[in-house]
Amino acid sequence: MDSWRLVEPELDLDRLAQTESLFALSNGHIGLRGNLDEGEPHSLPGSYLNSVYELRPLPYAEAGYGYPESGQSVINVTNGKLIRLLVDDEPFDVRYGELHRHERTLDFRDGVLRREVEWSSPAGQRVLVKSTRLVSFVQRSIVAIQYEVTPLDQPARIVLQSELIANEQLPPPGNDPRVSAVLEAPLESEEVDPNGTGVLLVHRTKRSELRMAAMMDHIWDGDDDVLVTVDAHPDAGSVTLSTALEPGQRFRLVKLVGYGWSSQRSRPGVRSQVMAAVTAAKHTGWQGLCTEQRQYLDEFWANADVRLDGDERLQQATRFALFHVLQAGARAEQRAIPAKGLTGSGYDGHTFWDTETFLLPVLTYTSPRAARDALRWRHSILDLARERAHQLGHSGATFPWRTIRGQECSGYWPAGTAAYHINADISDAVLRYVHATEDVEFQRDYGLEILVETARMWMSLGHFDAAGRFRIDGVTGPDEYSALADNNVYTNLMAQRNLRGAADVVVLHPEKAGELAVADSEAGQWRRAADSMYVPYDERLGVHPQATGFTDHERWDFANTPAEKYPLLLHYPYGDIYRSQVIKQADLVLALHLRGDAFTAEQKARDFAYYEPLTVRDSSLSACTQAVIAAEIGHLRLAQDYLHEVALTDLDDLHQNTGSGLHMANLAGVWLVLVAGFGGMRDHDGELTFAPRLPPGWTRLRFGMIWKGRQLRVDVRKDEAGYKLLDGGEPLDLRHHGQKITARTGKAVTKPIPQLLTPAPVHQPPGRPPLTGDTSHGRPWFG
Amino acid sequence: MDSWRLVEPELDLDRLAQTESLFALSNGHIGLRGNLDEGEPHSLPGSYLNSVYELRPLPYAEAGYGYPESGQSVINVTNGKLIRLLVDDEPFDVRYGELHRHERTLDFRDGVLRREVEWSSPAGQRVLVKSTRLVSFVQRSIVAIQYEVTPLDQPARIVLQSELIANEQLPPPGNDPRVSAVLEAPLESEEVDPNGTGVLLVHRTKRSELRMAAMMDHIWDGDDDVLVTVDAHPDAGSVTLSTALEPGQRFRLVKLVGYGWSSQRSRPGVRSQVMAAVTAAKHTGWQGLCTEQRQYLDEFWANADVRLDGDERLQQATRFALFHVLQAGARAEQRAIPAKGLTGSGYDGHTFWDTETFLLPVLTYTSPRAARDALRWRHSILDLARERAHQLGHSGATFPWRTIRGQECSGYWPAGTAAYHINADISDAVLRYVHATEDVEFQRDYGLEILVETARMWMSLGHFDAAGRFRIDGVTGPDEYSALADNNVYTNLMAQRNLRGAADVVVLHPEKAGELAVADSEAGQWRRAADSMYVPYDERLGVHPQATGFTDHERWDFANTPAEKYPLLLHYPYGDIYRSQVIKQADLVLALHLRGDAFTAEQKARDFAYYEPLTVRDSSLSACTQAVIAAEIGHLRLAQDYLHEVALTDLDDLHQNTGSGLHMANLAGVWLVLVAGFGGMRDHDGELTFAPRLPPGWTRLRFGMIWKGRQLRVDVRKDEAGYKLLDGGEPLDLRHHGQKITARTGKAVTKPIPQLLTPAPVHQPPGRPPLTGDTSHGRPWFG
Repeated sequence: MDSWRLVEPELDLDRLAQTESLFALSNGHIGLRGNLDEGEPHSLPGSYLNSVYELRPLPYAEAGYGYPESGQSVINVTNGKLIRLLVDDEPFDVRYGELHRHERTLDFRDGVLRREVEWSSPAGQRVLVKSTRLVSFVQRSIVAIQYEVTPLDQPARIVLQSELIANEQLPPPGNDPRVSAVLEAPLESEEVDPNGTGVLLVHRTKRSELRMAAMMDHIWDGDDDVLVTVDAHPDAGSVTLSTALEPGQRFRLVKLVGYGWSSQRSRPGVRSQVMAAVTAAKHTGWQGLCTEQRQYLDEFWANADVRLDGDERLQQATRFALFHVLQAGARAEQRAIPAKGLTGSGYDGHTFWDTETFLLPVLTYTSPRAARDALRWRHSILDLARERAHQLGHSGATFPWRTIRGQECSGYWPAGTAAYHINADISDAVLRYVHATEDVEFQRDYGLEILVETARMWMSLGHFDAAGRFRIDGVTGPDEYSALADNNVYTNLMAQRNLRGAADVVVLHPEKAGELAVADSEAGQWRRAADSMYVPYDERLGVHPQATGFTDHERWDFANTPAEKYPLLLHYPYGDIYRSQVIKQADLVLALHLRGDAFTAEQKARDFAYYEPLTVRDSSLSACTQAVIAAEIGHLRLAQDYLHEVALTDLDDLHQNTGSGLHMANLAGVWLVLVAGFGGMRDHDGELTFAPRLPPGWTRLRFGMIWKGRQLRVDVRKDEAGYKLLDGGEPLDLRHHGQKITARTGKAVTKPIPQLLTPAPVHQPPGRPPLTGDTSHGRPWFG
Repeated sequence: MDSWRLVEPELDLDRLAQTESLFALSNGHIGLRGNLDEGEPHSLPGSYLNSVYELRPLPYAEAGYGYPESGQSVINVTNGKLIRLLVDDEPFDVRYGELHRHERTLDFRDGVLRREVEWSSPAGQRVLVKSTRLVSFVQRSIVAIQYEVTPLDQPARIVLQSELIANEQLPPPGNDPRVSAVLEAPLESEEVDPNGTGVLLVHRTKRSELRMAAMMDHIWDGDDDVLVTVDAHPDAGSVTLSTALEPGQRFRLVKLVGYGWSSQRSRPGVRSQVMAAVTAAKHTGWQGLCTEQRQYLDEFWANADVRLDGDERLQQATRFALFHVLQAGARAEQRAIPAKGLTGSGYDGHTFWDTETFLLPVLTYTSPRAARDALRWRHSILDLARERAHQLGHSGATFPWRTIRGQECSGYWPAGTAAYHINADISDAVLRYVHATEDVEFQRDYGLEILVETARMWMSLGHFDAAGRFRIDGVTGPDEYSALADNNVYTNLMAQRNLRGAADVVVLHPEKAGELAVADSEAGQWRRAADSMYVPYDERLGVHPQATGFTDHERWDFANTPAEKYPLLLHYPYGDIYRSQVIKQADLVLALHLRGDAFTAEQKARDFAYYEPLTVRDSSLSACTQAVIAAEIGHLRLAQDYLHEVALTDLDDLHQNTGSGLHMANLAGVWLVLVAGFGGMRDHDGELTFAPRLPPGWTRLRFGMIWKGRQLRVDVRKDEAGYKLLDGGEPLDLRHHGQKITARTGKAVTKPIPQLLTPAPVHQPPGRPPLTGDTSHGRPWFG
């Protein structure tokens, strides 16, 4: 086992949906599911371009004011990854003939998907097929595939058909509302251009009117013996190469595919753009593309890698997670990062609060440029968010709960529009990014406007009550098993930070604040609301209710809820779930993490113990937060168990929907558990602190962070932790378990880890324990 | 002006939608909108049969567990009221030629709609047309129309085309969600039978698979000179009569139409049923049908009429209201009474809680048999309600929020399924009916099961909290501008009555209770929950919050809500409305009425004063309740103003949607304001009490009630009130302003009305005062 690779040692057709997601390649701009080169069999063919979507009507049995009338759904764009092989006229298809060997490897350092197959055709021709697929991090419009075929026993006639297919037939969507509505044939042909050894197709989406082009070109060995034909139709282009090979003789084809799209540019413009991209890639060549890719990833891993000694499988899962988080965000460049990245069409390809709350904390410290670009995308949709606020009767801006392009696409407002916390989540990500990078230009040109407009929204949403407290009523917090509650603690505390952050930043950039007509009195009101923010507390139980009244509700009848009734939302009415004490995902406990500065240690322990037995983790956005707080309180074994659950969510398909795309926020959660959980990293208001502590069985944990331009390295062992900076950064003040320390270049400052006082035990709902950290769990089917 | 008739002195085509509803005829089984005989022009053609509906899919942008997948929509059945007239080959159409006179009269004692028209054709032929339309209360399958035409100046060739038309083309529905989705061509022809001087058509609905038949037959004067032809197609039958008339010579046609439907009976069965009905009606003859109709109504009015001296227009509106309430319920016979009766397709023809809470209190005391039948319909859908409860995870039965046949048809659960109070409303109607009638058989065979199954639902919905209080969380009360709140006072108090009523009745019928497996311990639990029912109270303000936390919410910004933004639900998002203190319709104030026994007089005054300025009356189910409580507290002028608003809601089209059907509950509200408001009638737990008091300008109010088989007559004057019984009933103990009295036959017992202490003033939201009682209001367009 190599923790830098994910290997599928043999093909499992029953897991095809899952492996298509796990083996997806993306640079944040282009996404290709791990479909087999020859296209079939497949579970869900998927080629995506970030923000290329189609509109679809959102119907309502009973309409309501402000309900969005149309939604945006990511579409499967022109598929450029198809290479079909015929051996003596028999199509290579793993379901026929005999499959002697089939291995797929996702390489986290090379950034490629490799496949190696030994197959005998039904007629007995044995061939070796190797393919390597790459979506370039460096040349963001480019996909490249190297395809090699070698007859093993006898001479063979070999035909390769390299294709571009638009409007592929897709499987019908299931009944699970979490799976994307599939749109049939969303593309209309605008141009077909068979072009030398390639084909270029231009299409346009019917309703969203986005223009996209895909072009393929080819390079191959041994020109003399190869017959090439090119064929092109509106929805299909193909380049067919035919040759005859001796046993052991290898034929190698390199396919280069360029993608481009625009909502504004002309057909010739988009066409030229992809032709240029393909030409440049051809000039770079296969080897060059591979070298660039490795260099890009070497740089990433130098900062981002987390090394943990004592659990090799977890080490692999950690790198797998970080690789996919990078893939989702690396080159999104002012487009949304969807909840499933570009690995599947789940959730219609929408982005939610996941990005800012789970992905950006990771990217901020490992790939800050990607974090900045994601926030610039939020800034770019501010006009739409202002329109939405106006429609809803609010001041400022209201960001959409789910969207691709920026318009609200949520069709169920109690768990959509009402989840106002997304505005504070975005602001929190802005504040974190600026603290971490000291990127003052971003703060002035983008961050300030986001903070100001969201602060204005909070002021118009909430109100001062008779006792002078600032209340925010009728909102839905992160936990979607409650809705429309008053004074959700998470929301109120995050809004408090939002309001203070806005008031702070307008002082720093008075000119920009003036452009937004922020008066001193307005900022003063933000501070007054923040200072008066109401945080309910249940004196009887000595815990914070998730929202006003929550702790008065009936506890869910866990004892009579059989395992097959999870996730609850598919088996019980919302009304029943909402009126009960049952929690889908960390909400108050997420406040303990992100607003840990607002709670005492004792409160944290009591709150965690109260909420732990109520939290069923029907969302993948829960276990990582529970792990972080479990670690803080000292439940190290529990944190470790949750970490395993987080790490294996997609690798073991724990939610049985990895097939529609990876759970990107949960993957980011692996890093969060390691760094914020066992590393104890907190970053409240720009102060970086650590409180590391290893769980049983681990001997060492090492991770890096980029902080105010310095490269910090943290090295945690059983009894001590070391902190140092790389390459000559200015000394950095930190805290280690509360104690002030200064990290410098050269020798690490090493401090002992204080002894842990064993906390009181906590438990989970009956039947909902975390995955144990036992490595014998489940079916470790990958290598 | 005659208060026994509603007269439209001249035709106003701009008010056609409204007058089609106002002039609708119904017996609760058949409903005909007041369309012109000749069919055109029309706003909405409408012929309805109670519970003949079609299914339509209910779509959701985001699906959820337990959401109904299909809804039921009332359909426009075969139109049998069409009679077209041609004068010298020119069709009679009020839009062409010259209309000299056009008067329509709805007669509340004769139970007919009369029309008298003098018209000159474009060619100058002047004719007098008189029609009289009747939907028989006595022969419930029968519609009869007498149509008379007389040339006035010259001889004329007259052709009458009497038609039966199925699948009439309907106008497209508007965007207002309150208007029915219109279903195109829902009927499939099964049989076409031209039959002597009539035609019979049998159809079947496509998805709901209901079979219906309509048959017309004709009687006319002067056989010799009349040429008759009969024509029939799958969706159209016609009988054409052609004759020549001298000036002043009248031609009279009587059209008899029989309707029948069944979900189970065979085609020959349904066919025979309508043929028999038409034959019987033919035997009765036009005059006989009119006589029966008058007798039926004389009996009704003898008990139900409310006479008030001092406001003739209100007297007329009162009789109009009572006539339509009777029409809606008289012969529904174990079918639902829809919110709009059978006067239009608004709300898809659904029935809601309106029936039990507003209509049945009126029918219980004026037409108890109709009240019983409506409750037997509820009993007949208990199996569906049990299924629904099971689906929702509750014990017992959960009645649908809106339905025709019994299945839940609500497509927005926060204001549908969550409005659990409907179960208590139904139980309250059961308890009231049994108290009023002492109908022990009904109590045993129908009432008990409803009470037991709803009590079981409450037990599983609510829970005992740590303080031992029984809480009901996460429900929506009558006020639809709040949703999913905890401990809605109205709901909790009505559930309390429901639980006690169930516990009481199982003692009376132990055998029946045994069949339902009610153990003593179970009934004990019902009592314990009822006794521990939590009723929140805001100590700071000294009022009852509508639900827990309500009084902490921000007040709606009434000052900045312009008149055109009402109703709010069409102009503001639910989220904003729900989180604010703004009330669509009486909720806590309805509790002050229906559970007045649970409040002190001082609490009532304080609560009313608190809620009055928050209540915008965007629902027609509000003003009547506000009037009742205003009268109780002593705001007589305000109560009078509200009464005018209630009385004119449809007559003056105050909600601008009378065109899609009359507001039946609001019409019942006229009686409620008079009897429960100014008469001060209350009927808590079977004790009948009065506290009458006349508003300014009235000199006398008289009304009757049927109570435990006796006919009670109440006669209220400025300073005293008299109570007596008709025809030899046993003496009856009552209360008059708290004082025990006994009403007997013969001479009335007369008691003085105590002096009124002027209560503190109350006010309404800015811009939302009630209609003043000033008779100069508006445009009194009818005579």
